[in-house]
Amino acid sequence: MIILLGEFLNNVRKKAPLVHNITNYVTVNDCANILLACGASPVMSDDIHEVEDITTIANGLNINIGTLNSRTVESMLVAGKKANELNRAVLLDPVGAGASKYRTKTAFDLLNEVKFDVVRGNISEIKTLSNGFGSTHGVDADVKDEITKENIAIYVAFAKDLAFKLNTIIAISGNIDIVADSNTAYIITNGTKMMSKITGSGCMLSALTTAFIAANSFDKLAATVAAFCTMSIAGELAYERMEKLDGNASFRNYVIDAIFNMDNIQLETHARYEKS
Amino acid sequence: MIILLGEFLNNVRKKAPLVHNITNYVTVNDCANILLACGASPVMSDDIHEVEDITTIANGLNINIGTLNSRTVESMLVAGKKANELNRAVLLDPVGAGASKYRTKTAFDLLNEVKFDVVRGNISEIKTLSNGFGSTHGVDADVKDEITKENIAIYVAFAKDLAFKLNTIIAISGNIDIVADSNTAYIITNGTKMMSKITGSGCMLSALTTAFIAANSFDKLAATVAAFCTMSIAGELAYERMEKLDGNASFRNYVIDAIFNMDNIQLETHARYEKS
Amino acid sequence: MIILLGEFLNNVRKKAPLVHNITNYVTVNDCANILLACGASPVMSDDIHEVEDITTIANGLNINIGTLNSRTVESMLVAGKKANELNRAVLLDPVGAGASKYRTKTAFDLLNEVKFDVVRGNISEIKTLSNGFGSTHGVDADVKDEITKENIAIYVAFAKDLAFKLNTIIAISGNIDIVADSNTAYIITNGTKMMSKITGSGCMLSALTTAFIAANSFDKLAATVAAFCTMSIAGELAYERMEKLDGNASFRNYVIDAIFNMDNIQLETHARYEKS
Repeated sequence: MIILLGEFLNNVRKKAPLVHNITNYVTVNDCANILLACGASPVMSDDIHEVEDITTIANGLNINIGTLNSRTVESMLVAGKKANELNRAVLLDPVGAGASKYRTKTAFDLLNEVKFDVVRGNISEIKTLSNGFGSTHGVDADVKDEITKENIAIYVAFAKDLAFKLNTIIAISGNIDIVADSNTAYIITNGTKMMSKITGSGCMLSALTTAFIAANSFDKLAATVAAFCTMSIAGELAYERMEKLDGNASFRNYVIDAIFNMDNIQLETHARYEKS
Repeated sequence: MIILLGEFLNNVRKKAPLVHNITNYVTVNDCANILLACGASPVMSDDIHEVEDITTIANGLNINIGTLNSRTVESMLVAGKKANELNRAVLLDPVGAGASKYRTKTAFDLLNEVKFDVVRGNISEIKTLSNGFGSTHGVDADVKDEITKENIAIYVAFAKDLAFKLNTIIAISGNIDIVADSNTAYIITNGTKMMSKITGSGCMLSALTTAFIAANSFDKLAATVAAFCTMSIAGELAYERMEKLDGNASFRNYVIDAIFNMDNIQLETHARYEKS
Repeated sequence: MIILLGEFLNNVRKKAPLVHNITNYVTVNDCANILLACGASPVMSDDIHEVEDITTIANGLNINIGTLNSRTVESMLVAGKKANELNRAVLLDPVGAGASKYRTKTAFDLLNEVKFDVVRGNISEIKTLSNGFGSTHGVDADVKDEITKENIAIYVAFAKDLAFKLNTIIAISGNIDIVADSNTAYIITNGTKMMSKITGSGCMLSALTTAFIAANSFDKLAATVAAFCTMSIAGELAYERMEKLDGNASFRNYVIDAIFNMDNIQLETHARYEKS
C-alpha cells in the first residue's frame, strides 16, 4: 500500500487545526511559526485556570516538557485528561527525559495519567521511557544510542514493543527516523545532519505532528509519517538553499520557509520511507 | 487636518522611550527587536517584586495577556496602577480574550483597575470586551467577525461606542484597521494578509504602539494611527521583498527590518488612512 | 605573550561542552542557537526540582537574571552552589542590575552565595555591582557611563579592583570591552554599534563565554577574551554582510551565522585586543 502523504498535508491546510501547546519557552516562537507555516493555528497556554478551556476549543494538544516546572506540569496533566475526555489528538514530547530525575518522573506521570496518540522524542529520550533511566546528553541524544543501518532492525522491534507497552505511536527522530505502532513501523531516511545544529528541531516536529494527527485522525500512524517526511524534506531543502555565509540561524528560517512553501507533490516526490 | 505621521516616528527615534513589557513568552523576542527597530528601548519584567520600579523608570507600559498566569496577572495589575499614578503611557493587548473564561475575566479585571490609553486587539478580542464573551479562534480573529468594506460603518460606530464606554482608544487590527476614540475614528487600509501567517504580528504592533504613544503623549490617537501605519507599511514592504523560497520566517525578519529602515517620508507617502 | 585565541575556539568545537542556562525568556532561543553555532550544546532548565541534576551533567552554568522571579532566583542559588561544589565553570550575567532594587539585591545575593568564574555585563550593570546602586537605562548601559579612549585607564583600574574585590573575572562589554582579573586586563576594540540594536547581544555573549570557559578551564581569562573577540568579530562580519533592506532582524541572524562559520584563522586575524 502506498500512502499518499500529500493528502495529509492538504488536510492540515484545509482544516487549519487549532493546536494547543503547553511547551517550553526556548523554542516556542519557532513552534508557533511552523504551525502557521503548515496551515495550522497555534495557541500557547499553560495556566491551570484556563488549559481545559483552551484544550476544549482546540483540535490537538502538544505537551512538551522542555522547560517544565511544578506549575506547568500540573497544567499538562489537567489538559491531557481533558483532551482524552473530548477525544482530541494529543502528543507527548518528553524533552530531556533521562537528563534529570524530575523530567523522567514527569514523563512517566504523564504517560500514566494521559493516553497519548503519539510520543515523539530522540532515541535517548525514548529509551528512557522504556528503561526508566537514560543517557540523554542534556536535551540531545547520546551518540552511543544512534540509530544506524546496522542496528535498525533492533530499534524497529524496540519501537513496536514500546508502542505496544505504552499503547501509543512511538515516533523517534534522528538521522534515521522510526514511526511505529505495535504492528507496523515506518523507517524514514529523509533529513540532514544540519537539523541538529538548530535548537527546536525536535520541538517543531512535535508541534507539526500534532497538527497532522489532529487534521487526519482517521490514520494517525500515516499522519505521523507525513509530518516526519514534511519536516525532514524541509530540512533538506533548507540545507540546499544555504549560501556561503549562512549558518544555523539562516538555516532555521529556511526550514520554516520550506514548510510554508511545501505542497503535496513536493512532499510525495521527495519522501523516502519504507514499511518494516 | 492632515496628520504628519512622520513626525510621530521621528519622535520615537529622537526620544528613545523605554517601554516596559509584561508580555507572553511566545513573541517576546520579536517585541523586543521591533522596539529596537523603531528606536525605542525594551525592558521585559514581570515579577511583583520589581514591576513598580521598572514602570517608574520606563516611559510606557505594554500589558499583553498572551501567556498569562496568576503570578503575572498580579504583576500586571500592580504595574498598571503604578503607570496610572505616574502618568505613564499604558496599553492593553487582551490576547485571546474570549478563548477562555480566565482570559476574559483577566481582561475585565485589568480594564476595571487600570486606565488604559489604548486597547489593541483583533476584532474578536475587542468584541469580547464589549459583549463579555467572544468567538475568538484561539488567539486569532474569528472569520465571521472580519471587518470589510461592507460592514465598516457598523464597526466604526462600535469602536467609538466602546472607546466611550471604556474611556480609552480602541485600536482594532485586521485587513482593515480601525483606531478610534469616542469622537473620531481612523480607518487604515495598509497591510497584507501575510501578516496573519506569522506569530506575534499583533503583539509586535502593541509594543510598537506603546512606544509611539509614550513618545507622542500630546496626541495619542494620532500616535496610534502612526504606529498602525508603520506596522502595516512594513508588512507591505516585507511582502514585496519576498523571493521564491521565502516563507513566513523570512517574512517576519523582513517586517522588523522594514521598521528598522523606515523613515518619515516613506511612512507618509505609503500611508493610506481616512478619518471617519 | 601572544594568546592563540583560535585554540580556545577549537577546544569548544572539539569538546562540545554542555552549558546549563538559567536565563530569561526574551533571548533564550538566540542563546541556544549561538551555543550550537560555536559547537557547544545548550540545555535550559530553571526548576528547583532538577537544576542540581542538570548542573551535574553540564560542563558550565550560565546564570542570567534578565526576567528573574522568586521561583527562578531560588533555582539560580541552588544551581550555582552545586556548580561550585562540582567545580563547573559558572558565569553571572546581572542583566539590568541597578534598574530595580530586586535585580540589584538578587545580583548581590548570587555574588555572596556563589563563586563565579566570570561576571559579564554592560558598564552600568558592573558599576552597580561596585556601588550598590546604578543608573542602568532598563537593560541598556547609561550613555554617561560609556567607556571611551579618554577614560579607559580609569575603567581598567576599576575592573581590576572589582575583580579583586569579588574574586572573579570582570568582563564588561560595550563599544570598547574590558576583560580583567585582579592583575591583568585586556582591552578589546572589535565590534560594531549595530550590536546595540538587537536584543540579546549581551545574553548571547554570556552564553558563549560560558562555553569558552567550560572548554578551556586552564585559562579562563584568555578564554573570556577569546569569547569576546569571537562575538565582536561576528558582529563586524554580520554588519559587513548587511544589504540595503536588511535591518536588525537580519543582522541578528547574520551574527549567529558568523559564529557558526568562524574558524580559528579568522578569529586570530581579525582580533584586536591589547593587554593593560
